[in-house]
Amino acid sequence: EKIKIQKPRWAVRASEMSKKTFNPIRAIVDNMTAIPNPDKPMIALSIGDPTVFGNLPTDNEVVKAMKEAIDSKKYNGYAPSIGYLSSREVVAKYYTCPEAPLEAKDVILTSGCSQAIELALAVLANPGQNILVPRPGFSLYKTLALSLGIEVKLYNLLPEKSWEIDLRHMESLVDNKTACIIINNPSNPCGSVFSRKHLQKILSVASRQCVPILTDEIYGDMVFEEGAFQALAPLSNNIPILSCGGLAKRWLVPGWRLGWILIHDRKEIFGKEIREGLMRLSQRILGPCTIVQGALDHIMNKTPQEFYDNTISFTKSNADLCYTTLSSVPGLCPVRPAGAMYLMVGIEMEYFPEFESDVDFIERMISEQSVFCLPATCFEYPNYFRIVLTVPEEMMIEACRRIREYCECHYQGAESTQDLECDK
Amino acid sequence: EKIKIQKPRWAVRASEMSKKTFNPIRAIVDNMTAIPNPDKPMIALSIGDPTVFGNLPTDNEVVKAMKEAIDSKKYNGYAPSIGYLSSREVVAKYYTCPEAPLEAKDVILTSGCSQAIELALAVLANPGQNILVPRPGFSLYKTLALSLGIEVKLYNLLPEKSWEIDLRHMESLVDNKTACIIINNPSNPCGSVFSRKHLQKILSVASRQCVPILTDEIYGDMVFEEGAFQALAPLSNNIPILSCGGLAKRWLVPGWRLGWILIHDRKEIFGKEIREGLMRLSQRILGPCTIVQGALDHIMNKTPQEFYDNTISFTKSNADLCYTTLSSVPGLCPVRPAGAMYLMVGIEMEYFPEFESDVDFIERMISEQSVFCLPATCFEYPNYFRIVLTVPEEMMIEACRRIREYCECHYQGAESTQDLECDK
Ligand SMILES: Cc1ncc(COP(=O)(O)O)c(C=O)c1O
Ligand SMILES: Cc1ncc(COP(=O)(O)O)c(C=O)c1O
Repeated sequence: EKIKIQKPRWAVRASEMSKKTFNPIRAIVDNMTAIPNPDKPMIALSIGDPTVFGNLPTDNEVVKAMKEAIDSKKYNGYAPSIGYLSSREVVAKYYTCPEAPLEAKDVILTSGCSQAIELALAVLANPGQNILVPRPGFSLYKTLALSLGIEVKLYNLLPEKSWEIDLRHMESLVDNKTACIIINNPSNPCGSVFSRKHLQKILSVASRQCVPILTDEIYGDMVFEEGAFQALAPLSNNIPILSCGGLAKRWLVPGWRLGWILIHDRKEIFGKEIREGLMRLSQRILGPCTIVQGALDHIMNKTPQEFYDNTISFTKSNADLCYTTLSSVPGLCPVRPAGAMYLMVGIEMEYFPEFESDVDFIERMISEQSVFCLPATCFEYPNYFRIVLTVPEEMMIEACRRIREYCECHYQGAESTQDLECDK
Repeated sequence: EKIKIQKPRWAVRASEMSKKTFNPIRAIVDNMTAIPNPDKPMIALSIGDPTVFGNLPTDNEVVKAMKEAIDSKKYNGYAPSIGYLSSREVVAKYYTCPEAPLEAKDVILTSGCSQAIELALAVLANPGQNILVPRPGFSLYKTLALSLGIEVKLYNLLPEKSWEIDLRHMESLVDNKTACIIINNPSNPCGSVFSRKHLQKILSVASRQCVPILTDEIYGDMVFEEGAFQALAPLSNNIPILSCGGLAKRWLVPGWRLGWILIHDRKEIFGKEIREGLMRLSQRILGPCTIVQGALDHIMNKTPQEFYDNTISFTKSNADLCYTTLSSVPGLCPVRPAGAMYLMVGIEMEYFPEFESDVDFIERMISEQSVFCLPATCFEYPNYFRIVLTVPEEMMIEACRRIREYCECHYQGAESTQDLECDK
């Protein structure tokens, strides 16, 4: 018998995991080839970054906190991989309440809320298990789940009920491989805020089905009506909950990459195992930037209430403006938001026969009006588009004006086509 | 037929992945129960963080760079997940050279060198494949590989050859499932620095076997002899190389979590696939803190040469002191380091029959002398221990004095037992 020795050859392939890791927004947006109308300056209502136009700077106290942390020279070395004890204490104190007490040991600091979600999913689910994810919903959930080999089951949100969860649908998706339910409140992309009552019903499902919850509360407290935000964990004393959040949105510093997981486990159902699992996983990349960690106390405790109020009243004012304007646009059905920084607009596609899809609708809107919103196909929800509400007011007004013009031009409703002016 | 409906019960388990994610140093250190001698203040020569004792602060320009980045208010929003184009340009310009040209597109910014290694492994290897890792070596390689389901094969470094690689051994480990070879130069824990010639031989192995290289050069340029550091990539124009680095060690800010991958692929063997894979993987947690990214230009281009020189001459002076002192200690065989910030010391275990292992040896050293070094079992290399060289000089001197006392006390060499004083 002869052994044939093959000369090795180069054959470097990207891993399966890297191929499964996939941001649907990028895929959709990168495929949109529309060229903006050169006669109209581009207005991007697409970017979920409230800082891009400079109209919503972070607070001076936040800036001061960072400079003090740098000057102290105390925060240059390695922190524990789950964060400094003192910084975890700050977060625990900020979010603790009698119904859901938190201590430093219940807090894990992460590189943004994104990594909080990544660690939470990585500790709760094995490849082959599934998680329940809202539709429409933030695309990262699916990106991370598929990257980890976890199956995604989408439960419906109901636009006609201010995007409440179709609880029966959600419960019907639970099976013995369901590792957790993801709740996102306030919601990206809906701008919806769940009532206490609805949250209690969600908890009932989890309790009945014995499924833990990952709640993404990165927009927590960012609600238009005072007191309308209710965190999920304080409403339950038996469901194990990982609550993910961060500085990104409320403190208007998404680039700083500081997030957290709050572990709520009053019945010790997660137990030591999940806590230790999270700690072990955090050792892979060793936590968020120590300067931001060092600044946390100052950031969370000295930022004036006025700052938070201003962000909200600004966003609410744009929300009102946008909702009111688009409500009277033929063929559009905006859904009034109650928080976060987004508004979803339904497209009555039957009145726009020219367009095959929301993606199509948006592409033409770019080329004719230079207004760019994300088609909600990005959020697994065709025939809607999402508007970001944190842009400067003039931009919001002009964008709404152009969206109206665009729709009036292309609307082909039975009764009203004749009445509408269209210069195309 | 009757369907029996089982009432669900709580059964939340930590994922397999979280169980496979495992830092051996933690496991070993946490199991060491020794209580330091209360009569002697503790000296920790164990922590690979050059900032802990305050004797090696970062440069003022680095501090200034950060404050300017904060004041500019330009770096609060999201950056692209692989980093700002301008920041990637800075890194590319800093490390480019005619033999290995780099542009911004070849740079990926990460949350520390740890995440650089994580992404590099995640894109190159599938579960079930293997990687070659140095022994002794930095424990994170194995932690990350096992977490990803990648097998680890350890190739030997040779203490008697200043920790050069046993190339024959390394090559013998390559099989058709080998996804990459990890090279770490300068080395943690060895403090060794490979010559150009040795690097060329390493490249020959990779070339013959057609295996890409992940080189961890986080201690790049941190060498005692001027010009002694040679980066790997410029020596090859055909091997695909991912070179990982970061600010942590050379700029003395490990907590800031800024690292990078430099993609060297002049023969396009990685091709679009690996580049795109890295980009997709980076979208999971969205890159390092934007303030540090914004400060990069200033940090890399305005930090005075003197700062780097000072760190090196300080470390070298401690290295000389430590090496010289321990060379004359009975039963110890220090290996002279040439860079990084570590020194490995062999223990002639046969002369210390009281101790079963390096871990044992170190535990007793803690309880008798309050000196803590890492047993090299942490690096898969029993019968050695690692000394961190960046501690204040007085501490280094006192630690060496105590280590001598400890060894003289426990040494049971044939000829010399009688001569040695021992007060125990
Ligand atoms: C619902 C939701 N969760 C999480 C994130 C990610 O937050 P971070 O930037 O802190 O990673 C976002 C960002 O847009 C978001 O909209
Ligand atoms: C060889 C080596 N590589 C990588 C790292 C991790 O670097 P970072 O802190 O930038 O993640 C270390 C840290 O000690 C190291 O010694």
